[in-house]
Amino acid sequence: MTAPAPSGKTQVKLGLIQTHASPDPAENLARQLALIEKAADAGAQIVCTQELFRSPYFCQSEDHAFFGLAEEIPGGPSTQALMALAKKRGIVLVGSLFEKRSAGLYHNTAVIIDADGSLLGIYRKMHIPDDPLFYEKFYFTPGDTGFRAWQTRYGRIGVLVCWDQWYPEGARLTALQGAQILFYPTAIGWHPSEKAEHGVNQHGAWETIQRSHAVANGCYVAAINRVGHEILPSVGGAGIEFWGQSFVAGTSGQLLAKASADKEEVLIVEIDLAKVDETRTHWPFFRDRRIDAYGDLTRRFID
Amino acid sequence: MTAPAPSGKTQVKLGLIQTHASPDPAENLARQLALIEKAADAGAQIVCTQELFRSPYFCQSEDHAFFGLAEEIPGGPSTQALMALAKKRGIVLVGSLFEKRSAGLYHNTAVIIDADGSLLGIYRKMHIPDDPLFYEKFYFTPGDTGFRAWQTRYGRIGVLVCWDQWYPEGARLTALQGAQILFYPTAIGWHPSEKAEHGVNQHGAWETIQRSHAVANGCYVAAINRVGHEILPSVGGAGIEFWGQSFVAGTSGQLLAKASADKEEVLIVEIDLAKVDETRTHWPFFRDRRIDAYGDLTRRFID
Repeated sequence: MTAPAPSGKTQVKLGLIQTHASPDPAENLARQLALIEKAADAGAQIVCTQELFRSPYFCQSEDHAFFGLAEEIPGGPSTQALMALAKKRGIVLVGSLFEKRSAGLYHNTAVIIDADGSLLGIYRKMHIPDDPLFYEKFYFTPGDTGFRAWQTRYGRIGVLVCWDQWYPEGARLTALQGAQILFYPTAIGWHPSEKAEHGVNQHGAWETIQRSHAVANGCYVAAINRVGHEILPSVGGAGIEFWGQSFVAGTSGQLLAKASADKEEVLIVEIDLAKVDETRTHWPFFRDRRIDAYGDLTRRFID
Repeated sequence: MTAPAPSGKTQVKLGLIQTHASPDPAENLARQLALIEKAADAGAQIVCTQELFRSPYFCQSEDHAFFGLAEEIPGGPSTQALMALAKKRGIVLVGSLFEKRSAGLYHNTAVIIDADGSLLGIYRKMHIPDDPLFYEKFYFTPGDTGFRAWQTRYGRIGVLVCWDQWYPEGARLTALQGAQILFYPTAIGWHPSEKAEHGVNQHGAWETIQRSHAVANGCYVAAINRVGHEILPSVGGAGIEFWGQSFVAGTSGQLLAKASADKEEVLIVEIDLAKVDETRTHWPFFRDRRIDAYGDLTRRFID
């Protein structure tokens, strides 16, 4: 972990693609590819999409028709397009996709593609939410990949997805595999009826918990969230106002850069992987973990 | 956990005692008792001291003479005085003490005293730091109590101490025992030579990680830190500038109240334990923990 990335440099430019989604998957994929090109033009070496960028956030309802949005990995068009683009531009890509694994078996899956265009691996979202307008348990089988880290050309990275962000366990297990950067593609927003009363606290909790993963693990965290107010025609109602505000946190959890709440943005942030080693040495939390006393973390409740 | 405290109310007033330390342990104990009385006068029902309030932060050096500061629990004067005061005022008290358990065996220990003056239990600091001017591994054997929660007259509480604050594992294991409030007596500050460059990030990390425990567990967090610039005569140098800023975070991690960086303060904060149940129901993180996939949290590193 102390070694620089195989590129030989410790400075790395991240690209976070914060965008909206139209009803047309092909259009969303095309726009995503264009935005990734824009990030690459700006020097980004590791680029990450928001969660399920290829479609509106369909989990607002339980509708069997939406399973039609899923793709096979790596055979589907999105993975293939991302692999081709990674190779063309020589960049690492993390893409969040709706995976059809088999008939009746679907996952919320991230693909991790190295800068030569090869598929390094996948991560299947481990923690699946289910709340009003976020009916994910209907669509996604909880992941069976476990938590993972990958050595890419530009750094050792981990990927977790949205609801995972609330679980320090996932961040820790990824960091313990040496991850220097944790990527969180997400799709979170306000219920318009709650925004006035709870909006500030909800967003604050979201930002705080992810910054805390950087603190606890002495690593970088990049959260990539969608923007736009999405009301599904088949659902109606007030929909979800996705709150954007994608950000990168430094190794002490400090905000290094943050996008707006409502605009499409390509956020380019240079980080220095040498800070990971330095932070973990000066604030040596890994040294003192009481692994002899953590066994009950695998219990549902201690009662 | 859904039941109100045995008092029958869900509103509870917390008292956080943020103070300095003089070289005289008797004086520090007397001042602490007076400040607790002041908190009780203001209606506080659960009061917590900063870490090792009875003395300056002696861990700035490794000096056998300082073992003389330790006391037996419950026989020592501090525990006895706190028990008497808890009974007199009908309040719950959490006190952070230097425990002499036996010859050559010392702990950094919190006493948890119920409102009838009885000693509910103790917590021995599990994670022990060791860094320049924070030579705690010399003094304190890592705790063997494990992480705990106690039902007091005014709520179910957990207590962790200082360096524990950096470990989401400790907060989680305490919350999984139903704790509604996590108390963190601490003694943390700036090395004056680092303050200009790193001070903001260091304090930000400290506040962020503790607020995140409230987020992850849908509970309240109270951090009680000392103030004052302490230079030990036998050590000299620039000493440590304890940064105060004791605070209470709500169940979404939001700051409810925060003390100054340099003044003695008795912070009184009313909270509502019903919010714990409400938050955990609406943001049901406990529901979805992947306990089948957390086994490696008991590993030192996953390599």
